[in-house]
Amino acid sequence: MRKFAAEKSKDLFIARTKILNSVFEHPTASLSSSSSSLSLKPPSLSPAAFLLRFLTTTAIPNPSDSSMASDYSTTPVKLDSINPKLMMMAFSLVLKRVFICLYIYIYIYNGSSFRRFSFVLECEYAVRGEIVTLAQKIQQDLNDNPDSHPFDEIIYCNIGNPQSLGQQPITFFREVLALCDHPAILDKSETQGLFSADSIERAFQILDQIPGRATGAYSHSQGIKGLRDTIAAGIEARDGFPADPNDIFLTDGASPAVHMMMQLLIRSKNDGIFCPIPQYPLYSASIALHGGTLVPYYLDEEKGWGMEVSELKNQLETARSKGISVRALVVINPGNPTGQVLAENNQQEIVDFCKKEGLVLLADEVYQENIYVPDKQFHSFKKVARSMGYGEKDISLVSFQSVSKGYYGECGKRGGYMEVTGFSPEIREQIYKVASVNLCSNISGQILASLVMNPPKVGDESYESYSAEKDAILSSLARRAKKLEEALNALEGVTCNRAEGAMYLFPRIRLPNKAIEAAKAVNTAPDAFYARRLLNATGVVVVPGSGFGQVLGTWHFRCTILPQEDRIPAIVTRLTDFHKGFMDEFRD
Amino acid sequence: MRKFAAEKSKDLFIARTKILNSVFEHPTASLSSSSSSLSLKPPSLSPAAFLLRFLTTTAIPNPSDSSMASDYSTTPVKLDSINPKLMMMAFSLVLKRVFICLYIYIYIYNGSSFRRFSFVLECEYAVRGEIVTLAQKIQQDLNDNPDSHPFDEIIYCNIGNPQSLGQQPITFFREVLALCDHPAILDKSETQGLFSADSIERAFQILDQIPGRATGAYSHSQGIKGLRDTIAAGIEARDGFPADPNDIFLTDGASPAVHMMMQLLIRSKNDGIFCPIPQYPLYSASIALHGGTLVPYYLDEEKGWGMEVSELKNQLETARSKGISVRALVVINPGNPTGQVLAENNQQEIVDFCKKEGLVLLADEVYQENIYVPDKQFHSFKKVARSMGYGEKDISLVSFQSVSKGYYGECGKRGGYMEVTGFSPEIREQIYKVASVNLCSNISGQILASLVMNPPKVGDESYESYSAEKDAILSSLARRAKKLEEALNALEGVTCNRAEGAMYLFPRIRLPNKAIEAAKAVNTAPDAFYARRLLNATGVVVVPGSGFGQVLGTWHFRCTILPQEDRIPAIVTRLTDFHKGFMDEFRD
Repeated sequence: MRKFAAEKSKDLFIARTKILNSVFEHPTASLSSSSSSLSLKPPSLSPAAFLLRFLTTTAIPNPSDSSMASDYSTTPVKLDSINPKLMMMAFSLVLKRVFICLYIYIYIYNGSSFRRFSFVLECEYAVRGEIVTLAQKIQQDLNDNPDSHPFDEIIYCNIGNPQSLGQQPITFFREVLALCDHPAILDKSETQGLFSADSIERAFQILDQIPGRATGAYSHSQGIKGLRDTIAAGIEARDGFPADPNDIFLTDGASPAVHMMMQLLIRSKNDGIFCPIPQYPLYSASIALHGGTLVPYYLDEEKGWGMEVSELKNQLETARSKGISVRALVVINPGNPTGQVLAENNQQEIVDFCKKEGLVLLADEVYQENIYVPDKQFHSFKKVARSMGYGEKDISLVSFQSVSKGYYGECGKRGGYMEVTGFSPEIREQIYKVASVNLCSNISGQILASLVMNPPKVGDESYESYSAEKDAILSSLARRAKKLEEALNALEGVTCNRAEGAMYLFPRIRLPNKAIEAAKAVNTAPDAFYARRLLNATGVVVVPGSGFGQVLGTWHFRCTILPQEDRIPAIVTRLTDFHKGFMDEFRD
Repeated sequence: MRKFAAEKSKDLFIARTKILNSVFEHPTASLSSSSSSLSLKPPSLSPAAFLLRFLTTTAIPNPSDSSMASDYSTTPVKLDSINPKLMMMAFSLVLKRVFICLYIYIYIYNGSSFRRFSFVLECEYAVRGEIVTLAQKIQQDLNDNPDSHPFDEIIYCNIGNPQSLGQQPITFFREVLALCDHPAILDKSETQGLFSADSIERAFQILDQIPGRATGAYSHSQGIKGLRDTIAAGIEARDGFPADPNDIFLTDGASPAVHMMMQLLIRSKNDGIFCPIPQYPLYSASIALHGGTLVPYYLDEEKGWGMEVSELKNQLETARSKGISVRALVVINPGNPTGQVLAENNQQEIVDFCKKEGLVLLADEVYQENIYVPDKQFHSFKKVARSMGYGEKDISLVSFQSVSKGYYGECGKRGGYMEVTGFSPEIREQIYKVASVNLCSNISGQILASLVMNPPKVGDESYESYSAEKDAILSSLARRAKKLEEALNALEGVTCNRAEGAMYLFPRIRLPNKAIEAAKAVNTAPDAFYARRLLNATGVVVVPGSGFGQVLGTWHFRCTILPQEDRIPAIVTRLTDFHKGFMDEFRD
């Protein structure tokens, strides 16, 4: 195993990220003031016009496209007459996308020598993403002719969607959902033979909490009060500090909750939201849609993707010097795509920083059940803040939770909640107003959110089977994370931090210059070039790091740990063989 | 029965609505240039500042409010530092709200005499709404002491939420949902005894359409392809014209679909969306949230809430003269809150108008199954357009459908779809992008949307029981609508158009001047004053017309037809007795 020496220069790092900053905030401005290594045709186009031209002329995989586009000339909506914020979502939604990258080289003097750094201006390539589209095409090939490719199946490691890869739902949760969907069978004798006694009891309890037992009725816009009581009790049990059901807003997964907060906080592009880089692209997409500015802070890969308060301070200063009013700080813990679990003292520093700087702390805690290493534990930011003696009036804090992650992985159920503390009654009323616009979140998702925060307890009939299912999933995920991490670290030029939590590994790949040149030659980002090669050779689908943001000049990919355990050895073998071949082909 | 003579003057009507127009578009501007009949304190405040002051000082039903508000002085988010668009949502969300109205009188010369008109500037009063809050308080009183009020129950006629009032879900639909939630029981022998054979078969079919049979996985962002195939087939069967599954976007109810289209169409406040007045406040709320301008067109109450193309032309001209670029026309058919069903020739005129003026036709067709009169039928706008020979390239058309309405009334399931036709591939990709931000809609809602578009057919085991349940609900709703309509028309000074469809009656009440003065004296809109009195006297909850918009100087309320049929006689008696007493008290 050969590892490249880590580049070390803190000043340089800061300078570099400050410059990247400006790319994130004013992506087209940077393009106009810098030369690009890709030729822009025609070069006289303004950057915005180029971007638009680029988007409008991107091929869509439809054979009748060009004729269709002209045929629609009489319809009223044109690409240049829709909400321009949609066009600003370039740095987003990359789970399903691939980016064309324009390189802009900048030379920075670090005190002793000039170093060259490349800028990446991401332009959306195609909505379904080249790599996923390619994977689907290959899947079709394999269906038609199993011998059409050098592998017999596509292995999707691109998205945190456990049940799509065969993870089974927790039986107790599904029993309760089914009974709440069809309460007419609750009293039937056959039901006793089909469902566990405690699932029947729980369904009765839940129905009693719903006015009129009507699971088909709109609920209170924050969610059914009885279910919020259950969730608040679950939070109390987790944290050891009080939780108020009136602070809970049940939502269709965590994403709408994030949008609600962005909608509340962002008034104009002068409002900034601090986001980690690398980040889960929901945040960049939501900030773009609401017209705000993403203010990046960089996680330190050398320190296990840790958060450095000095970095936060520097970035805050930079943003403020540009007239950006930074409103909130997003923390994803455990991390996505980076898989780290923050240490409690690091969390304390972050809480203090937010309190001191007057930032709302937006804590993405959807992976709170996904911890795989014995030396780390999940602590909610609310628990950390309360442990420090900070109360309701000291810090504004939002915690996001989802039924999509954890050991339950119920992505399709679209359940989740946010716990909102430290906002005045007037602001809470405004949050309520935003929640009311869609009336309420789906009731099955609400029920499931209450179940994950109040699963079977010792003594309940389902407890043993529930625990066995849960432990099997989590221990298997831990083993998969470890195996994949070891396999990745064994590759030439690859380093990979531990997946302490969440569902992802985010290895860094040092690509040989020849590979970078080859990628450029086909107008592709080097990490996307690598990912495409990987897919074509092995059927393994990963997401290029450029979709999440990464320090300039570094290349990564995100790989989930979600394929079923019996497939991991095959993935390791395919990946190892591919990488060796790739390096043999491109090694400098 | 005494009816007031209808005011007749078309010119006057247009002049009046044009002026109201400007209130909707620039609510604060009108306030500043006009005198108000309510004293504003301090009068020197700018309208915006007054509005803000008004909102911030509105009492929130929390005993510790004033102290709490000051205690939050150290938290970062203040009412004046949140997204101001939230403050623009005043004319919205009124299902749960009541408005304080500021009267502004304007004198208009109609050719022969001056007429006085009052302007209504709606300011949000409290998020949970005075009337609903009051109803909940009374409910609590009744729980504590059944003799505390002159009635023994609250009857909620304020919201289209059928199952909250005892409507039972369709058994077949719930059977299928339960089986898809817990497929493990599909093969068990007890299941045969609990579920119908065709529900089991349907669950198998649906699971086979879901990749990996994973109902807990994220789906394609437009929804599961197999379910979209089913829905497209249902649309084809309904309309007799082809439907493409790629045109279907499954959503968590119709509301998110409406927001998606607004997000796409609205670039700035100079973009206008045509909305009917009266309208369902989702539209005004969504337009406000996305920063656009609501351009009203008035339904003609005298003609059964018909749409007049001359009115559309006048309003379009007015809007364009103010620099508003009108992008789309919202039609709600059957109507909410007005209950009318458009005649086919009226729909043809609207299609032609949209085609000619280059407007996207946004057709809210969520009440397509709710038709109660033999002389009216539902025709989708797509069917009408295709029947006129207009194809995909001729008109941009979006049809919204929901599982919340119809005979199914599954509001809590949050299922629905939009069918998007007549947009170029590039624009569709942008719609897809917006859909992708929240990953996908909930799978149970998706399954239910496929079921309502493909219910049991003749010969299926469930067909008879399904038909019986459906017919019982719809015929009962028709009888309820008729009884309530007759009862309302029998009241002094009340006229009520037929509820031809949907779930609502929207009677006009001619309030005596003394009642209007009494309302003013307590800073309440006259229709809200009436609704509050009604609630206090009878326990019946209705929504004041001012929440939906109405021609100036007219007063209405919206009353659902959803209380169970055996309660209708009691409602009629209570309403009749109340109204008589009210008129006796206030008759001029």
